[in-house]
Order: sequence, then C-alpha cells, then structure tokens
Amino acid sequence: MALKVGVIGTGMIGQDHIRRLTKVLSGVEITAVNDIDVERAKEAAPYGAEVFETPKALIESDNVDAIVICSWGPAHEEQLLDCIAAGKPVFCEKPMTTSEEAAIRIVEAEAAYGKRLIQVGFMRRFDADYRRLKAVVDSAMIGAPLMYHSVHRNASVPSHYTSDMPLNDTLVHDADISRWLLSDEIVGVEVRYPRRSTVGGGELKNPVIVLLHMESGAIVDVEISVAITYGYDIRGEVSGETGVASLPNRPATVVSDVNGIRQAMPEDWRERFIEAYDQEFREWIIAAGEGTATGPSAWDGYASTLTADAALRAAESGQYEPLKMIKKPALYLEAPAVAAE
Amino acid sequence: MALKVGVIGTGMIGQDHIRRLTKVLSGVEITAVNDIDVERAKEAAPYGAEVFETPKALIESDNVDAIVICSWGPAHEEQLLDCIAAGKPVFCEKPMTTSEEAAIRIVEAEAAYGKRLIQVGFMRRFDADYRRLKAVVDSAMIGAPLMYHSVHRNASVPSHYTSDMPLNDTLVHDADISRWLLSDEIVGVEVRYPRRSTVGGGELKNPVIVLLHMESGAIVDVEISVAITYGYDIRGEVSGETGVASLPNRPATVVSDVNGIRQAMPEDWRERFIEAYDQEFREWIIAAGEGTATGPSAWDGYASTLTADAALRAAESGQYEPLKMIKKPALYLEAPAVAAE
Amino acid sequence: MALKVGVIGTGMIGQDHIRRLTKVLSGVEITAVNDIDVERAKEAAPYGAEVFETPKALIESDNVDAIVICSWGPAHEEQLLDCIAAGKPVFCEKPMTTSEEAAIRIVEAEAAYGKRLIQVGFMRRFDADYRRLKAVVDSAMIGAPLMYHSVHRNASVPSHYTSDMPLNDTLVHDADISRWLLSDEIVGVEVRYPRRSTVGGGELKNPVIVLLHMESGAIVDVEISVAITYGYDIRGEVSGETGVASLPNRPATVVSDVNGIRQAMPEDWRERFIEAYDQEFREWIIAAGEGTATGPSAWDGYASTLTADAALRAAESGQYEPLKMIKKPALYLEAPAVAAE
Amino acid sequence: MALKVGVIGTGMIGQDHIRRLTKVLSGVEITAVNDIDVERAKEAAPYGAEVFETPKALIESDNVDAIVICSWGPAHEEQLLDCIAAGKPVFCEKPMTTSEEAAIRIVEAEAAYGKRLIQVGFMRRFDADYRRLKAVVDSAMIGAPLMYHSVHRNASVPSHYTSDMPLNDTLVHDADISRWLLSDEIVGVEVRYPRRSTVGGGELKNPVIVLLHMESGAIVDVEISVAITYGYDIRGEVSGETGVASLPNRPATVVSDVNGIRQAMPEDWRERFIEAYDQEFREWIIAAGEGTATGPSAWDGYASTLTADAALRAAESGQYEPLKMIKKPALYLEAPAVAAE
Repeated sequence: MALKVGVIGTGMIGQDHIRRLTKVLSGVEITAVNDIDVERAKEAAPYGAEVFETPKALIESDNVDAIVICSWGPAHEEQLLDCIAAGKPVFCEKPMTTSEEAAIRIVEAEAAYGKRLIQVGFMRRFDADYRRLKAVVDSAMIGAPLMYHSVHRNASVPSHYTSDMPLNDTLVHDADISRWLLSDEIVGVEVRYPRRSTVGGGELKNPVIVLLHMESGAIVDVEISVAITYGYDIRGEVSGETGVASLPNRPATVVSDVNGIRQAMPEDWRERFIEAYDQEFREWIIAAGEGTATGPSAWDGYASTLTADAALRAAESGQYEPLKMIKKPALYLEAPAVAAE
Repeated sequence: MALKVGVIGTGMIGQDHIRRLTKVLSGVEITAVNDIDVERAKEAAPYGAEVFETPKALIESDNVDAIVICSWGPAHEEQLLDCIAAGKPVFCEKPMTTSEEAAIRIVEAEAAYGKRLIQVGFMRRFDADYRRLKAVVDSAMIGAPLMYHSVHRNASVPSHYTSDMPLNDTLVHDADISRWLLSDEIVGVEVRYPRRSTVGGGELKNPVIVLLHMESGAIVDVEISVAITYGYDIRGEVSGETGVASLPNRPATVVSDVNGIRQAMPEDWRERFIEAYDQEFREWIIAAGEGTATGPSAWDGYASTLTADAALRAAESGQYEPLKMIKKPALYLEAPAVAAE
Repeated sequence: MALKVGVIGTGMIGQDHIRRLTKVLSGVEITAVNDIDVERAKEAAPYGAEVFETPKALIESDNVDAIVICSWGPAHEEQLLDCIAAGKPVFCEKPMTTSEEAAIRIVEAEAAYGKRLIQVGFMRRFDADYRRLKAVVDSAMIGAPLMYHSVHRNASVPSHYTSDMPLNDTLVHDADISRWLLSDEIVGVEVRYPRRSTVGGGELKNPVIVLLHMESGAIVDVEISVAITYGYDIRGEVSGETGVASLPNRPATVVSDVNGIRQAMPEDWRERFIEAYDQEFREWIIAAGEGTATGPSAWDGYASTLTADAALRAAESGQYEPLKMIKKPALYLEAPAVAAE
Repeated sequence: MALKVGVIGTGMIGQDHIRRLTKVLSGVEITAVNDIDVERAKEAAPYGAEVFETPKALIESDNVDAIVICSWGPAHEEQLLDCIAAGKPVFCEKPMTTSEEAAIRIVEAEAAYGKRLIQVGFMRRFDADYRRLKAVVDSAMIGAPLMYHSVHRNASVPSHYTSDMPLNDTLVHDADISRWLLSDEIVGVEVRYPRRSTVGGGELKNPVIVLLHMESGAIVDVEISVAITYGYDIRGEVSGETGVASLPNRPATVVSDVNGIRQAMPEDWRERFIEAYDQEFREWIIAAGEGTATGPSAWDGYASTLTADAALRAAESGQYEPLKMIKKPALYLEAPAVAAE
C-alpha cells in the first residue's frame, strides 16, 4: 500500500519534492496539498490530490498518512506541533524553527509523545560519500576522531545574501554533518574573518572560518567561501589518532587536454546532492510507513538553531561562545538510526 | 497510470528485477509473471500479480503493457517474436539470442513492425561514468576518437566458468560499450593470449587481449582478467586526436593509514553497476509507457552475437576475423536515443 | 673555481651536509671543519680539509670562502656576527637564534653591512611542489590568497619531544612557508588544543591547531599532528578569491590490490625533502660564489623566532597574541630572491 | 679524485651532457672533447679541456678515464670498439648502433673483454617513477606480471619526422623499459595502425599500436601517439596475477578553477625526464670510477636494434615478426645492476 502524503507549501522546493515523490520514488502517493496561496497549491497538486485550505485540515485528514512541510520557516512550529498532536510522521525542511524557544517546544512535544515523528531536511547525511566517510570514522580504521576540516565553497550567492547568512544558512550544513560524522555535540563556537574576497564587490563578509568545539574535545574547523566562482566544492577530512579519512573528488571524466589532466566540478548543490535528496525521501517513506521517523531529528534541528545563534554571537564578540543545551530527552539518546539503503 | 509489466523468468536475475520494479522504481506495477517452474513463479509473484502458464499467454494478456524477459537464452527468440507480434515493448536480458540467425530474425521482425520495441540489457550504457565519458567523446573536446583501451577485471569467476566465456560472456560488455562510446561498428576481431595467470589453478585461458577493429578505423584494445582477486576493476580510456578521456576512480573515501593513501575498489558488478541497473529500467519504463523502446536495441544484440562469434573464431585461428553484418535496417540508423535522465 | 667551504658543527646534520657538499653537488669543496669536539671534527673532515680549533679561526681563514653553521643553536649568534664581520656568505641551520634579541642583533648587523650574507635553513622553500604552488599563487590563476590550510603530520616524535615543541620546532616550517607562499608577514597567533591523541600515552599536547593572522588579513590555519603513526604527511592548500591551489600527492606507484587503489606515503622528512635539501645548497653555492645570499634570510629567521614565541604565549593565554616586529630594514624589502634552478 | 671524461660529439645533446657533467654533478671533470667539426668542439670545450682531432686519440689519451659518445649513430660502432680495446668505460647515446650486425660485433667484443664497459643511454631506467614501479613488480605485491600497457604520447614531432620513426625512434624507449620492468626479452612484434590522426595534415602513420610478445609469454601493448598536442604524456601499467601497478600522475599543483580540478602536464621529454638524465650520469660516474659499467648494457642496445627492425618488418607485413637473438653471453646474464642511488 502506498504511503499517502500531504504537502504543505508548494513553492520552489515544495514543487521539487512533489516531482520527486510522484516521478522518482515508489511506494508513495500525494493525496493532499496546501499553500498560503491557494491558486499555487492548485497548480502544484498532482492528479487526484485534494487542495486543503489550512495546514491543520490537511494534517488531520484521514486521507493523509504523513506530511511534508515546505512552508515558510516561521510557520513550521505550529505545523509540527499539529503533526505531533495527530501522531503523524512529518518531513520538515530546514530551518526546523527560527528560534531556540520554538525548537525546545517541538523537542519537548515529541519527547512527550514518546516516539520519533519528525525528520529534518539535512540531506547531506544521505549522500553516499558522507556515508562512506562516516563508516570509516565509525570503524577502528583511523582511531578516535580529533579534528574535522569542513570546506564549503559556493560558486556564487544570490543578491539578497547578507553577511549573516554564511553563519545562518550555510554553516548549518557543516555543523549538522560534523555532529553526525563524529557522533558528537557542539559545545562552543568561534568565528574568524580572513581577508575579504573582492568578488561581488567586497561588501559581503566572505570568506569565514568557524571553529566548532565538540563535547569530546574534537575541534571542527569550517572554511566557508560563498563566491569562489569556479563551482560548488564541498570537502571534508577527518583526522584521527592513527589515520585520516576524506571525501573523494566527485566522479567526473578525467580529461587530458590543453588545460591539463582534469575533472569537472559540480556547479551547485542541486547537481552535487541530487541523489542525496532522493535517498533522503526514500528512507523517510520507509520509516513513515512504519509510523515513525529516522534520520536527522528534531533534536538535530534544535542543535542547528543553537549553533547558528552561537555563531552569530561569536561573530559579534570575537570570542568563544558556548551553546547551552537543554538536557537531551531519552528519545534522542540512541545513535541516529539509518534505514536500510 | 502505472505501466503494467509481465516478467518471464523468475530465477535470480528475474527476482532482482521484480524487486527493482516493485520497491525502487515508480510508475510501474507487476501484473503478471511466468516461469518454466510454476512454483518458483508463484513464490516470486508480487501481491496482485497473475501467474501465467506460458510466456505467450502472459505476453498476450490485456493486463500486460510491457514485458521483461529473464528466461534462459535459447528461449528468447520465440518470446521476443511474440512480443513483436503483440506490438508490446520488451526488455530482454543478455544474450538477446544464442545464434546469429536468430538475431537476424528478430532484427528483421522488428524492422518489419516499423518501430522499436526491444531494449537489450546492456546496463553499462546507463552508468553515469560512461555517460559522462561519452559526452566528452561526442563533444569536440578531444577530437576524433582513434583508440579505446577497455579494461575488464573480475575478482573471480564461478567454478563453471570456461575459457570460452571471457569471449562469450565478458567481452560483450566491452564490445557493446565500445560501439556506443565511439558511435561505431565492429568490423573485425583479433585475440591474443598473454602469459597465463596461475590464480585458480591456471587451466583457464586468462588473461586475454582482444583487438576490436572498428568501421572508422579506430582500434579498441580490450584487456580482460577474470581472476585478479583484488576487486572488480573496470577502466576505459578514449584516445582522441587532441586529448584523452578516461573513466575516473569510483567514489570511495580517501583513507590515509599504514596501507598508504587509498580508496576501496568495488567487489563485483552488483556493487559497481547498481545504479546503472536502476537507471536502465527507469528509462525503459518511460519509453515503454510511450509504446516503444530506447537504449540498446535488437541491432546491438545482433552485433554482440556477431562479435562473440568472431572472437571465438579469432581465438581459434590466431588471425583477424571479420564480422559480416547484414545491411542495417533504417530503423536502427539514427544515433541511439537516450531517454531524459 | 670551486667554492671553498668551512663547516662549523659536525654532528648528525653537519655530517649530512658534508656528504651532500662532497658527494652530490658540484662547484664546491670543503676546506675546513670545526666542532666543539675536535675528535669528531677530525673524523668528519673530508680529505684535504683543515680542522680548526675555533669557529672564529675557521671563519677568518683565507682558505674559506663561505661557511655552513650546524652548531648548537645558542652558538649561532656569535658565529653569524663573525661571518658578517668577515664579509663571508653563510648558511645557518634552524633556529637562526634562540632569542628575539639575538635575532635583532643579527638582522641589524647584516643590514649595517649592506648586503645579504645569511641564508637560513628553511628547506621547504626549495621543494619543487611548494615552488609550483607558489608559482600558481603568484600568478593571477586563483586571485588574491585569502586562506591557507597547512597540515603537518609526523609519524612519530622522539621520546624527548615535549608539548612546547609542536610550537617551537614543528610550527616554524609551516609559519615560514606561509609567509613565503603568501608574500606576507605574520601579525598574530592563536593556538587551540583539540581532543588529545592517546598515541604514545597521551601526555603530549597533540594535535594542535594554530591560526596565523597575516598582515594582509589572510588567515592560515595550521593542523599539527606529531604522532599520526602512518607516515609523514605534509599538505597545503591556498584558497584564493576565485580558485584553490594544493600540494599534490607525492609521486608513488599506484597499486591496486586487496588494500584498494593506493599510493605509499613518505616515512619521514628525510624521504620527503631529500631533493629540497640538495636544491637548497645548490642555490646557496651559486649565491655564495657571488659573495652574497638568497633564499630564506636573517629576517625570515627573526620572524620565525617571533612566531614561535607568540605561539607559546598564545598556548598559555588562550588568546590572540600579536607579534611586535622591528621596522624591516630596506635590505629585506624586496621579494625573496630565488636563484635560477 | 674526479673522473676524467672525454666527450665525443659536441652537438646539442653533447653540449647538454657537458653542462650536466660540469655544472650539476660532482666527482667528474671534462678533460677532452672531440667533434667532427673542430670549431664546434673548441666552443663546447670547458675550461682546461683538450680538443682532440680524432675520437681514437681522445679515447686513448692518458688524461681520459672514461668516454661519453654523442656522435652520429653510424660512427658509434668504431668508437665503442676503440673504447673496449682501450679498456675504458663508455656512455653511449641511443641508438647504440644502426645495424644488427654492428650491435653483435660490439656485444661480442665486450663479452670477449670479459667485463662490462658500455652503458647505453636509456634514461627512463633512472627515472624515480619507473624505479618505484619496478620495485613493486619485483616484489610479490601484484604476482607475476602478465601484461604491460605502455603509453607514449608526444605533443608534437619535428617536420622531418617520418612514419618509420614511431617504430625506429619512439618505440625503443617503451621496448627497453618493458624488458627492464618485466626482466624479460622480446621474442616477437606485431604492429597495428588505428584510424589516423588528422593533426599535422594526416600524412604521418599516427597513432600506432604495437604488441610486444615477451619470452615469458607476457604481452606488452604499446600505444604511441606522436602529435597529441596537449603535452608529453607517458603512462605505464603492469597487470599481474593478483594486482596492478601504474605510473602516477606527475607531481603538479592541484588547481581548482573554471577549468575544473586539474594538474598541468609536462610539455616534453626534457621536462619529464630532466632528473632521470642527471641520475643516469650520476650512476655512470660511480661505475666508471670503478672501471666498469652498470645500467642499460650493450646487450640492451642490441635488443633495441632488433626490436626496431622487427617492428618495421611487422608494419610492412601486418604479421607477427619474430626476433632472432644470438645466444646471450654470460656477461649479460645477471639482472641489470643498479648503482646505489
């Protein structure tokens, strides 16, 4: 039996997920859509899907088994709480919430419910390269991880991208993947601004170096460049006690010509993570079919919010800024479950 | 509306395709199965699928839009001709036929029908690495292709594997991908046996070097090693007039430890081509939904049979053995169509 | 006419340089040696070389055109000042001096002399990989350099190695090469200690992350691991405004076997930099033959001493520690000269 | 005491060796030169070297310990025989001789003398990459070598380069290195001409595929492209019973920019093998100082001549052409000695 899914928010990313759920993946059908703009919802709705006037009505519908939230960030809290109230699995795009307090309310509501329902959209955890890297880190192959070097390079950013966004928008991916790769929590953040790039005019505080201090004592140094022009270049290297493990070059034809021996670079995150997005939903469908959620949790969404806030404070103060987390509910204590690939 | 598929042959590979069509891919449902062993067919049949007593009955059923043939090679001819008679799209596993004459009958029947219905199971054409390589060859980047070096290394082969099989079973992949990469036809074959490997006892004529002479004059040298022990290592390098293009290393974590800086090698073809198999069927479903076929054609199946036969003759004679092909029907003249990815 | 060289200090490194100057390089002969241990000097002296009782006598000898200093660090100042007084070119091993004050006295003496005489033994600047990297940085290929990631991994360290030594002994190589690669000066240092490696018992503060703040605003992050066990792994990556440039893997046979596709790693600095040591002296001989010095200067030795001192302070304070340099004498203003290779 | 060397032939390559022996290497001085053009000899002669009117006078001079022959190929035989008569070590540039008969006379004369005196100029054997590759082949790491794939790509060739020259001039390097890497002899040759490159007008028979059949049964397939335009690209891969070993990419800065992730390619053989030439003479000086020769022998020169002749016959006949070698004198039976690096 196919999983009946309702989609809240039919903007660009909502439409892309609708395409994925209807054209690419099996075991799922979209039975309901909702958007603040009803006309847009109607256009985006696949054949046979009902258009609901409110998120709450969609969530509570008997014809909806599970929900995908792609609405505006500030709307997430209420929608997630409604999903928990209805006991229905939900996939929620980043950011899970836009405030620490909202994140805590969601974590506490899910913990009170007693079973995981929420998967947050950190797609990197579903990327095959990162998964192989984690498998090496988790094995005894390189010993305990002591440092992680995470490099995040965007070819360019949109004109509305501001100096807060490397810390608010970009860093969250490196922060989440660091916590996951090292099976660790972030306890403090430092931010340093190197010599500024003149690409794009030089008004943006770019690049940025961020040091994430982990609970184990490991340090993650994140190098963010958001206007490197040449491509979307994501790198990661874990230094352990007795070995080092790194993400490989992306598979690309090795061409020898007048430009040297060379491989093409992905243009953007769509090209780089296209398979991770598919896999993210493939596993969500399996877990949702069993009435629960795996992958990145509400706790991970909460940690992400706290990290971004601490990074913004650290950018301001120039100092080490600690994260103050609530006590971790038992629901989140176990290692992040991974559905069978 | 989902494509209704009937599967003929529910042995190991048939079962794997049933899994793929029901669990991995969308837009398709299996409505019918058949096997020479009815009990095996019943076990393999997914929920709701009808078990047919004969291939012909399955092919002609109104509840079957398209057919997947995974039966024994000698049975393919009759089943394919029945599919053409019924005007239904069909995916046929390798080898398309076991004789040149049968291959010609199929090609002529499909040509007479006037539209492509058959896709033959050369999955390498759906592999992302090969597709990127072909894109480079087809561009002006390296000039006209003059040579192709194709390396095919298996970790091991089953105990029933005989000295004919590198030419009969293994070479066909290199031959088909060479024709496709270079947009060319094979016109003659030479076979050379280097010093024999002692792995596995040394009775097998292994390794083998095969030279494929192409219609354009390009030469493909194929290096086949079927008991290299360390992994499944597939390589390809096209030398053009002004550049060279090669398959990259497979993506794998770069580990630095006491064994050096290293990346793991795939163990076997299942690991190496798992995504190509999915993509092969993804595109088949799209074309079959439109009542036709794309990808490797009956003509490609015919060329494959001729190449294997010529290679066996060349191994015997030590000489250059020409292929004598029938005139290519207009149906196959255009470049191999590729469904949108 | 061969350059007549006197060697002061005939311990392990002095003996290695004597071997290099007599067996490997041309255009040079060793005419004089001195050591605090006269017997050791006699044993190390090549055929025809005179053994001097004092460094000063050797330096002033008419049979000595140029001097190589491999004595104990605290002895360097007096010997270097004597060389300047004699107007003779001198190669001095690291550290140039053991105090900031001594370094200033040498810099001022050389500046007063008005011509460069001193080359300090930072051999990395003569390594072909680093030179090619600098050529890319100096070109317009990657735009202005904004960050440099310098990785320094030793397989192991001797038992007398203490927690000060990553900053005192190891960091100086990364610091000097950073200044040279970026054509920049270090203005401040931060030190962070990640989770400690348990290799070797865990008493050593290892690994270490050092941030070098450059005059241009560029930031260098140095990752030091001194007991990584698997080899001697030196990495460097410059991130520019529009591109990135990195040291390549060391040339080593690519082996595919049960351990994967792999390349061996150098065991130690002797293996890694053997050619750089030769080239370092090749260029020294050329410049000394012209009565002067090129390559790393007394100013670079001074900067190195200041950086190590600031790093030790930063390790203690946990804070940013600025370097306070004297005004750069005009003698050192031009870009570091490079003798023809 | 420095080795006193006389150089015969002061054309371009002779001048380069004079530079190497006087400016780069130690333990050697040039005391004598000779050229068919006396004025050229005078210009090329370093300070203190005597200009001889005849090769024979130079060879027999008491002031000459060892000889370097860079004269025209047809003159080599007489000069080499004079060196043997004088009992003096000699380095002889390729080709050792221009006929099989001449090569036999030299081999027999040296064998009669009873000690190796001749080193032939196959510089690839002194290249660090090839030496590391041979070390892997000679170890048990990949099992017995069964195939070797040797790729020889030149960016361009001079206008006087004719269709014989890939077999006469270019192939000899691949043939010699194959014999050395595999510790094997060539027993037969096949030549195939793929589709011709149009670069340079298309009159040249280029590229060429050559199969070298080895005494052990191993097969070497050589891929020669002499006008690939993009650089000088030398590749080699040995396939063994249980593993594969390949030459690595040349060390070059890894640049990520708009052209991809890339490394520069050497422009020509001077850039690629500059260090091999130095090492070739470094080892020659050591052996000549002991009155003998190591490295590529007269026997290797003889084998090279036979291989080129067989390749030319095979190009003509389209058939397998066997080499008919004389019985190998005991002098050449042992493995090629390698002087300490």
